[in-house]
Amino acid sequence: MKRQIHFGLFIMGTGSHIAGWRYPGAFDSFQNFDQIKEIGAAAERGKFDLIFMGDNLYADPAAHPSYTLRLEPLTMLAALSQSTSHIGLGATASTTYGDPFSTARAFASLDHISKGRAAWNAVTTANAVTAANFGRDHPDHSQRYAIAEEFVGVVRGLWDCWDDDALVANRETGLYIDPAKVRPLNHEGAFFQVKGPVNIGRSPQGQPVILQAGGSAPGQRLAARTADVIFSVVQDFDEAAKQYAGFKAQLAQFGRRPEDVTVLPGFMPVVGRTEREAFDKLATLQGFVSTTNALTMLSERFGTDMSAYDLDGPVPDIQFPDTYHSFTSVMIAKARRENLTLRDIYNLTAAARGHWVLCGSAEMIADTLQYWFENGAADGFNVMPPYFPDGFNDFVDLVVPILQERGLFRTEYEGTTLRDHLGLTRPAVGEWAG
Amino acid sequence: MKRQIHFGLFIMGTGSHIAGWRYPGAFDSFQNFDQIKEIGAAAERGKFDLIFMGDNLYADPAAHPSYTLRLEPLTMLAALSQSTSHIGLGATASTTYGDPFSTARAFASLDHISKGRAAWNAVTTANAVTAANFGRDHPDHSQRYAIAEEFVGVVRGLWDCWDDDALVANRETGLYIDPAKVRPLNHEGAFFQVKGPVNIGRSPQGQPVILQAGGSAPGQRLAARTADVIFSVVQDFDEAAKQYAGFKAQLAQFGRRPEDVTVLPGFMPVVGRTEREAFDKLATLQGFVSTTNALTMLSERFGTDMSAYDLDGPVPDIQFPDTYHSFTSVMIAKARRENLTLRDIYNLTAAARGHWVLCGSAEMIADTLQYWFENGAADGFNVMPPYFPDGFNDFVDLVVPILQERGLFRTEYEGTTLRDHLGLTRPAVGEWAG
Repeated sequence: MKRQIHFGLFIMGTGSHIAGWRYPGAFDSFQNFDQIKEIGAAAERGKFDLIFMGDNLYADPAAHPSYTLRLEPLTMLAALSQSTSHIGLGATASTTYGDPFSTARAFASLDHISKGRAAWNAVTTANAVTAANFGRDHPDHSQRYAIAEEFVGVVRGLWDCWDDDALVANRETGLYIDPAKVRPLNHEGAFFQVKGPVNIGRSPQGQPVILQAGGSAPGQRLAARTADVIFSVVQDFDEAAKQYAGFKAQLAQFGRRPEDVTVLPGFMPVVGRTEREAFDKLATLQGFVSTTNALTMLSERFGTDMSAYDLDGPVPDIQFPDTYHSFTSVMIAKARRENLTLRDIYNLTAAARGHWVLCGSAEMIADTLQYWFENGAADGFNVMPPYFPDGFNDFVDLVVPILQERGLFRTEYEGTTLRDHLGLTRPAVGEWAG
Repeated sequence: MKRQIHFGLFIMGTGSHIAGWRYPGAFDSFQNFDQIKEIGAAAERGKFDLIFMGDNLYADPAAHPSYTLRLEPLTMLAALSQSTSHIGLGATASTTYGDPFSTARAFASLDHISKGRAAWNAVTTANAVTAANFGRDHPDHSQRYAIAEEFVGVVRGLWDCWDDDALVANRETGLYIDPAKVRPLNHEGAFFQVKGPVNIGRSPQGQPVILQAGGSAPGQRLAARTADVIFSVVQDFDEAAKQYAGFKAQLAQFGRRPEDVTVLPGFMPVVGRTEREAFDKLATLQGFVSTTNALTMLSERFGTDMSAYDLDGPVPDIQFPDTYHSFTSVMIAKARRENLTLRDIYNLTAAARGHWVLCGSAEMIADTLQYWFENGAADGFNVMPPYFPDGFNDFVDLVVPILQERGLFRTEYEGTTLRDHLGLTRPAVGEWAG
């Protein structure tokens, strides 16, 4: 069979467009679980590999109004596991503001409840305002990745404390757990001391799938060592192809093959039956963007007070901090390449938070995705609809069938776990440690 | 209408009897969500007020084999919210090993997802072995309660950061959140610094219901100030009545009325159509108890190495530490009152972990519960089945109908939220702070 495209659905707030909720008929709450169920059903109808829920650990209604008030990812996806049967369920959890024991057991629990569909998007939490909600100091970028390297290892170690057949429950002998099939972890590291074992048995996937999105050098290194799927932030094909090749080349040093990690560039689809219809939709969406919070949002994304700069001038030639590494580097490169103003950057960011916007007819979008997929820029895509439900239904109903027709995307799920969808085997105990 | 009994279903491992999973036909895994769904359906068929899931943050197969491997409470109950429609969903979360921001948002999320059925069982985590899974020192009993007092206040404060109508989503004006309807918390306390606001809006119940189980003086004080429901550990009517009156008398100092808190003594029902049938079941259950781990379990419950003492001798006249305060004091009092041996204590503990065992015909059990309820010992009961599903179905099918016939228990849910079932009003923003 031909190599197949993988699709993730990214759910963040009411959609990836900052004002997508204003579109006629769009969902306008990210706290309404009935709406989430409808989105989940559409993704499963579209045979997507997984749903992936972003997260923040702070509320900032000025910069991000439409994803300020939101359901918590693990409870949301645990509930969603009950109205879906095949699709993977990826929740974001922080390695800076969580703890490994609780994280390991929560994702193992989601994997048990969903019968093998759990994924953990391990993030280091970029925004320093988070710290004030946890009474702590915010570690810097390199420190956060040092913590994350250890954190992910501890979680994976906890997932392997129990053999698959440790739960015996022999009614005759009264033996419930075989004591030979459990090992404490006894981890003593620079940041964490975790004895274990965890209080949940090895889960259906053995190890839940690990997702990562960091684009910085330490982020790529962590992903190359530990991730099964990565989401990347890109703006054009050349950049994506370069990033793809660069990332895959890093896998060998950890004893991994290129096909062990699925690379999914993120993009916001704006789909029309014709190109004209698509561009009208995008114009409508952009018409909803208010400029009053442009400088607030740019300041937040750049980690720099931008109020001193002219919105209609260029990106200033200053050193930006490393807050949102991927975003900052990709957007600044694009701005310098294309002579964009700060206002252009703001409009692009408002549209898709710095991700690639792919606007056109269903045929054109399918062609583009196929080109990227077949020419070394992607193993699939992280689809970031501008709004729900129609901003996503358009993609499922108009673009997916074209790719299915071309033999590039599944028409039915062939397995039941997320590892099955991604073509990953179930690891034996201890196998992840490489 | 007559005052009504309230029922909680306690789910801990494969049942409250240490070897209940060996009963013919009993569920033998606490990681199988299909079985949990069946239990949830039975509880809702029985019109119970809530399901309440206990928790530990460590694995100890020697002392507690049948609840060593378990689903995590919040993910489990979020999933269960989808196959139930009315019953309250109470998850345990620790004030010693959690953080207030994550706790507040997770329970608010469960409350949104379940449309107003979330409850938080706030525990201080008694067992010191937990600390090794979190790389921390285990605070002593009084310190844990000092932390808990502050923790619960922070969580309640976070739940009230947003007014009920803060999410505006006005498509015309583009205003998504009304900035006048949110307040940060800016909490600066002895143990926690939490700025807020939390990133989830006020939930359907306004404040999710708070459950507590501590029986010590600081535990009772915390419950009197903050709990909506308490679970108590008792062994006989006089003790329960004294505890009930003592607890209710503490409410006034916090400006609360006796009816503001529902007191539910825990008990393990062993129900037969006849008394003989019930005692045969109990004998079968007790026949499954292995004595090999008697001293391990007693040592763990007493917080003291018991291997130096004769299992057939009395409870030694030594000072026990305050590990499981309620358990220790209730069991020692019972042992001294009734001249029990350590083996007797072990058998009682194996049966129901120190809780009251109520074994008899359905009629006798109904009579006893009615007597307690009408004579100042209880507002209802926390039902702790020895095993599932039949050890619980017997109660739902044989005992509940008798109490319904007598007009003491609902035949249909009258409201949709847990607060409705408990007769509690939905608090206005800030109303909890009293």
